[in-house]
Amino acid sequence: MPLAAVIGHPVAHSLSPALHNAAFAAGRLDWTYVAFDVAPGAAGAALDAMRTLGIGGLSVTMPHKEDVAAAVDELAPAAAALRSVNTVVRDGDRLVGHSTDGDGFVDWLGASAVPVAGAVVAVVGAGAAARSVVDALGRAGTDAIVVVNRTPGRAAAAAALAASARVGTADDIARADIVVNATSVGMGGDELPFDAGLLHEAQVVADLVYHPLETALLRTAAAAGCRVVDGLGMLVHQAVLQQVLWTGVRPDPIVLRAAADAELARRAVAA
Amino acid sequence: MPLAAVIGHPVAHSLSPALHNAAFAAGRLDWTYVAFDVAPGAAGAALDAMRTLGIGGLSVTMPHKEDVAAAVDELAPAAAALRSVNTVVRDGDRLVGHSTDGDGFVDWLGASAVPVAGAVVAVVGAGAAARSVVDALGRAGTDAIVVVNRTPGRAAAAAALAASARVGTADDIARADIVVNATSVGMGGDELPFDAGLLHEAQVVADLVYHPLETALLRTAAAAGCRVVDGLGMLVHQAVLQQVLWTGVRPDPIVLRAAADAELARRAVAA
Repeated sequence: MPLAAVIGHPVAHSLSPALHNAAFAAGRLDWTYVAFDVAPGAAGAALDAMRTLGIGGLSVTMPHKEDVAAAVDELAPAAAALRSVNTVVRDGDRLVGHSTDGDGFVDWLGASAVPVAGAVVAVVGAGAAARSVVDALGRAGTDAIVVVNRTPGRAAAAAALAASARVGTADDIARADIVVNATSVGMGGDELPFDAGLLHEAQVVADLVYHPLETALLRTAAAAGCRVVDGLGMLVHQAVLQQVLWTGVRPDPIVLRAAADAELARRAVAA
Repeated sequence: MPLAAVIGHPVAHSLSPALHNAAFAAGRLDWTYVAFDVAPGAAGAALDAMRTLGIGGLSVTMPHKEDVAAAVDELAPAAAALRSVNTVVRDGDRLVGHSTDGDGFVDWLGASAVPVAGAVVAVVGAGAAARSVVDALGRAGTDAIVVVNRTPGRAAAAAALAASARVGTADDIARADIVVNATSVGMGGDELPFDAGLLHEAQVVADLVYHPLETALLRTAAAAGCRVVDGLGMLVHQAVLQQVLWTGVRPDPIVLRAAADAELARRAVAA
């Protein structure tokens, strides 16, 4: 009965147990997934715990992603580029760190029938989420990636992750085929991460925020005629990639999405 | 979503996950129970892991019971007497070691309507299981406990655990109200732990072996007219006491027993 778990702090409200357990059940895998609240600074001890207890796989969330990247035995390419790990995989006695967020986002665009190859993508933001998206888009055949951020230094660091990426300005949002909000603006509120007047109907607008699921940005973009892609799909598809890494079996993303929707609905009723 | 787990080596065939998860489900408790294979010598590291990950409770089995007793912050009385821990409970930042095996056995006798108060009990064997039974019977109002074992020195050490206990001989088996096989003789085979000609129909015969559930001893004792008490009930009732310690909620032993029977039946079909 192998165990997988998310480590984070706080972690009580993580959707990951609902997603992963639904996928394990649907695939008739004898795995269980739980959440461990691990204190800041204890990521290395959590990896020791993983070794001692033979835990089969870990998801890693705030504030441990960088500490875990420093503590695993080996980093897969995306995690090495980002110096950040969201997935730990056991390879015999070795622990290997991966980062599935960016590839999960690219898979979600694909599942949404959004063409990535040849596209010009504006990524708004330069934090960890933005970095993972830039890195993955850079490997996905985009024509150009433009990083738009208030702090130019951080934008340059994010753009350095992909050969096709550069730092841009708000005007680049208007010229992009795909616009990605990779800031946290819009989380739990009605703020917009940039001037929505820049959007037009030929564009796809993706938000990485999924609380609320329909952000003010997506609502405004839809009203402007854009195709919109919500933030929950990235969570779903990065989890799909985690399960492939842990179990070798690819779960159906529909199962994880349904579990995520059900859990969010349950919480909305409870709140 | 609190986690409890058994640590042992080997542990893959432990019945504990089936018992505990059935009880959590029946009680609508948001707990999950898994098995961790922890290498010999790593019990201290497993307790560190429990602290780091915030694991809610541990069951401890071979070969870790003594090492855990040495590594917890505090020992409850039975565990202190036995220098052996089968249950670790979180009390804030402190880990407290308990031993529920003996009390589980006494509870199982009670659930089987076997009067313990005032009884003369012969305990055959002097290992860890025998010691836990002697300790618990000594607190349960028995009139006398007689420890019968091939190695007298170990018998004396076990008898020292209860004021009412002494070392005895095979003849004491014939004189006892309750006879307990606390050796492993009969496990997976047809051997008898002592001369069954000593038994007579006024006696209760309890076997701690539960694989097979109907041991050669219990079959022979039943044929001699004795009341018989199988070994699975001790496993069930010690698990009930573990859940009380971890969650504060007392599960129905019937639920755990049904889960144990179902799991054993499932394995018999699979074998």
